[in-house]
Amino acid sequence: MTTNQKIQALREKMQQENIHAFVVFSADPHMSEYLPDEWQERSWLTGFTGSAGFAVVTTTQSALWTDGRYFVQAPIELEGSEIQLMKDDVEETPNYIDWIISQTPKNGKVAVNALATSNANWEALESKLKAKNIQLVDAALLENIWTDRGTPSKNEIFAHPLKWAGQSVSDKLSAIRQKMSEMGASLHIISSLDDVAWTVNLRGSDVDCNPVFLGYIALSPNEAILFVDDEKLNEEAKKQLAEAEVKTLPYEEFFSFLGKFNGEKVLISPNCNQSVFFALKKNNSFIKAAVPGNLMKAQKNATELEGFRKVMVRDGVAMVKFLYWLKHNVGKEPMTEYSIGLKLRGFRAAGENFVGESFGSIIGYKGNGAIVHYSAPENGSKEVTNDGSILIDSGGQYLEGTTDITRTLALGTVSDEFKRDCTLVLKGMIELSLVKFPKGTRGVQLDAIARMPLWLHGKDYAHGTGHGVGSFMNVHEGPQNIRKDMNPQELLAGMVCSNEPGFYVENQYGIRHENLVAVTELETTTSGTFYGFETLTLCPFFKDVIAVELLTEEEKDWLNAYHKTCQDKLAPHLEGEVKAWFLELVSPL
Amino acid sequence: MTTNQKIQALREKMQQENIHAFVVFSADPHMSEYLPDEWQERSWLTGFTGSAGFAVVTTTQSALWTDGRYFVQAPIELEGSEIQLMKDDVEETPNYIDWIISQTPKNGKVAVNALATSNANWEALESKLKAKNIQLVDAALLENIWTDRGTPSKNEIFAHPLKWAGQSVSDKLSAIRQKMSEMGASLHIISSLDDVAWTVNLRGSDVDCNPVFLGYIALSPNEAILFVDDEKLNEEAKKQLAEAEVKTLPYEEFFSFLGKFNGEKVLISPNCNQSVFFALKKNNSFIKAAVPGNLMKAQKNATELEGFRKVMVRDGVAMVKFLYWLKHNVGKEPMTEYSIGLKLRGFRAAGENFVGESFGSIIGYKGNGAIVHYSAPENGSKEVTNDGSILIDSGGQYLEGTTDITRTLALGTVSDEFKRDCTLVLKGMIELSLVKFPKGTRGVQLDAIARMPLWLHGKDYAHGTGHGVGSFMNVHEGPQNIRKDMNPQELLAGMVCSNEPGFYVENQYGIRHENLVAVTELETTTSGTFYGFETLTLCPFFKDVIAVELLTEEEKDWLNAYHKTCQDKLAPHLEGEVKAWFLELVSPL
Repeated sequence: MTTNQKIQALREKMQQENIHAFVVFSADPHMSEYLPDEWQERSWLTGFTGSAGFAVVTTTQSALWTDGRYFVQAPIELEGSEIQLMKDDVEETPNYIDWIISQTPKNGKVAVNALATSNANWEALESKLKAKNIQLVDAALLENIWTDRGTPSKNEIFAHPLKWAGQSVSDKLSAIRQKMSEMGASLHIISSLDDVAWTVNLRGSDVDCNPVFLGYIALSPNEAILFVDDEKLNEEAKKQLAEAEVKTLPYEEFFSFLGKFNGEKVLISPNCNQSVFFALKKNNSFIKAAVPGNLMKAQKNATELEGFRKVMVRDGVAMVKFLYWLKHNVGKEPMTEYSIGLKLRGFRAAGENFVGESFGSIIGYKGNGAIVHYSAPENGSKEVTNDGSILIDSGGQYLEGTTDITRTLALGTVSDEFKRDCTLVLKGMIELSLVKFPKGTRGVQLDAIARMPLWLHGKDYAHGTGHGVGSFMNVHEGPQNIRKDMNPQELLAGMVCSNEPGFYVENQYGIRHENLVAVTELETTTSGTFYGFETLTLCPFFKDVIAVELLTEEEKDWLNAYHKTCQDKLAPHLEGEVKAWFLELVSPL
Repeated sequence: MTTNQKIQALREKMQQENIHAFVVFSADPHMSEYLPDEWQERSWLTGFTGSAGFAVVTTTQSALWTDGRYFVQAPIELEGSEIQLMKDDVEETPNYIDWIISQTPKNGKVAVNALATSNANWEALESKLKAKNIQLVDAALLENIWTDRGTPSKNEIFAHPLKWAGQSVSDKLSAIRQKMSEMGASLHIISSLDDVAWTVNLRGSDVDCNPVFLGYIALSPNEAILFVDDEKLNEEAKKQLAEAEVKTLPYEEFFSFLGKFNGEKVLISPNCNQSVFFALKKNNSFIKAAVPGNLMKAQKNATELEGFRKVMVRDGVAMVKFLYWLKHNVGKEPMTEYSIGLKLRGFRAAGENFVGESFGSIIGYKGNGAIVHYSAPENGSKEVTNDGSILIDSGGQYLEGTTDITRTLALGTVSDEFKRDCTLVLKGMIELSLVKFPKGTRGVQLDAIARMPLWLHGKDYAHGTGHGVGSFMNVHEGPQNIRKDMNPQELLAGMVCSNEPGFYVENQYGIRHENLVAVTELETTTSGTFYGFETLTLCPFFKDVIAVELLTEEEKDWLNAYHKTCQDKLAPHLEGEVKAWFLELVSPL
């Protein structure tokens, strides 16, 4: 089926049910960032495969909204279809609700699949439509159109044992129940997959790159129930659940189970799917707030931090071996962005306790480096040779932790402009590494520190500076981040974040330098408690793309000290020519 | 009457009206920061004279909430009274509403004076009390207790002509009406005194240091009415109002006039007093939003910016002459913090078009410098001699603009710690002077730039880095600022802000360096439009309190360039010994 044929089939269903517009969010019932295959509704319908974006089909038109990361990729993937591209954050782009309203008659009907729509999205849409006398209804319209839709994975769910999790399930449940009690809740629903997995110290592989599994948790003061496909749990997982007195019920029974509740005060996130709210409506009241476990999960304990430090050595060794291979073979043997990604995966896979990649590698050669979330296709990705620059953003899932690293390097001749921009980005990354800040500081207060070297040259990047990172968990997690946006979450000890400024010149090159850092308590003075960042990532930067004269003494000192740490931690695991090459890389500036 | 006697009298009134708690905000009907004398209810009742803070009196207890600027001053002023000090932003301090609730019986009554309570405060208080079945009522309980309360001033209201305002009243009214139309408003109320004065290009002196007058504006698409004491308007003011077709009605008739409106869509700030909302209740609906003129006022036009530049020369000359006098006479003749303030006022008063001080000077010698909003009393202020340091924060109102400057200097021996801290604060001020940032950047994103040199030493200051400054208008104005708080207002070209980091060691010394800066458009690149700060203030910093080795090359360059600008602008207005001394001050580091 072509995209236009799919849209035609959808329109026929819409007509049968007298629906004027259908919205397809990029979402699953757990509001995951990376979706299980069977929930790639938007990708299936539109052909656009980016991680963010949603589509609307009306009786006569269809459109896809996505953000700046995909302004290059989306038009390519939408080509040949009737779908219009709507660029988010561009002034002339209509709001999708206004756009729907403009095409829907009074007393018309708009549908979404409530199971794949967050309560927040549902309510925003419903109230604006209501104001125009348009009704919002729940309809899974793709059901009989997407006939070869997959079924949920049967992949094993396994224990994430105490030696790596650092906190028992019982301890986590009591901490969450304590919060429930403080907030006056008698029932708590956990629906986000990483929060579910964290709470019960289990991991799975139902979603690419994210070690999560399909599940919901219903928690009351006396009962904890995990809704999960029981057959997927291995013995150790079952034992661990039993020890913590967590019962299991089939995943499919979750919604009917919710129907039994009456008069409960339900602590639930507005990011939970709307079907849960429908199922709970009868006489229950809602305390809408972030899942308390989410903030607990973000503050890594000592065991988890030690896990990060361990896997960074393995990941750094893999990166160094890979970079050696790349630098020494590029231009001599044929390679593409895609094949380089496979090679890099191979180096990581050789490491102990490697589980898989933490996200699809971004290997952007020359102009492709400027496509922020570029994914090199298996067929037809760019051939890479000994000229220009390449941006490599990749990461691994290990049993003890998660990595995410970006290095940008020259494979041959690069311009002075490239080298200068590369240095400005590095200065930003270093300046952010050097900060110290009082308790209470939020990411938005530090974001400009990483951008200032670029800003002073009239340059900026259209993405955040840092995202939270899970511990053998999703590579993107909340609630903290380091962005221009006004996220009220303060940075707290143990939070792991990326530090990844960048700069991009369309069709020419992309630059990003990324390390992971952990918020660490440094000292308490009369002015309060001060935190800093401990850099976790271990992998050198290339001196041939640094314009040393642009670095301050403090920045040079940081880089030399960082390279010394890389040497101390990684050199014992390297040998021969690779080691000799590495020692040259990490020698003082 | 002692404070305790006043509280006793209030409690008697409370008992008569069956009121369990009375809240006294530090406010007047216009939510002014600096209050006219007759609205100093909180100061009169409690004895605490700080600019921020509010009191609550219950049947058995009384308490005053204030912030970090007043943690030293408040206990001194409250001594001998029954009033407890509640420190805002300190973890154990109860929220005032919770504190009231803990002492008020179910179905009890809490009162405030709605005329001196913003709608936002009223609603927050009302909804929380309602949830506990407590009623909020409007009662002016101090009415017959504060018997020697003053009456509104009769000071002249005069025109702020186009040559200094840069925009005519008619143009301002059409711009506001345009906004009203965009927002769907049929009526607009302006109640904040600076917004009133700005809108009609008039100035007065009803409030100390703020060139405003008591007034309200009611604006409809066809009518503009200024509610004001007509007798105070001078001829030119009347003429200007007539030209712009602004009618006047007596200030006292405002509330009865509001009663005539019916079915209006009223654009009104939630910072307007609650009595206005009561007066407008009948069938009118509210569009609660910031007064549109507030943002227009903040973006100074070219004429206003030129006015700032002009008065900075006058103000700088006054400061240099004053500093010469202080440095050369301290230790030789008797002087106090208070007398120094008078002397400084005298130097400013010698300048052209000087109207008065823009706020009560803060002259803090040694440990008093650590009291952030210190006001030296006429009797008993500290004697100043040739030892230690002094912090001098002062400013002037001139017909063309407003100044606000802080310098910290050594009068004799100072410690190495003082010199280091003084340099760290200066580094922060310089780093913020050097920034460049894309359109859309808010103050909260830049605040840490000024703090980082201190943060790196485990030091911080408990006040904002920058506030907006009016043009021959209030020295504190919104909507922008540079603070840790998440103010969503982006910095826009023409906004004038202070840049004033500080550091304070209780009982030892206070350090603050403050210049005013204007947001200036610098360039537009592929990354967007970039802004920077133009430093407006002209007055040298003292090299004998700078540890030069702590400055970076960029910081030294900035300071040398700044001193060169001071020399170019101020030297032509100086003579003899003062000039020779000044030239030495501004010589390169």
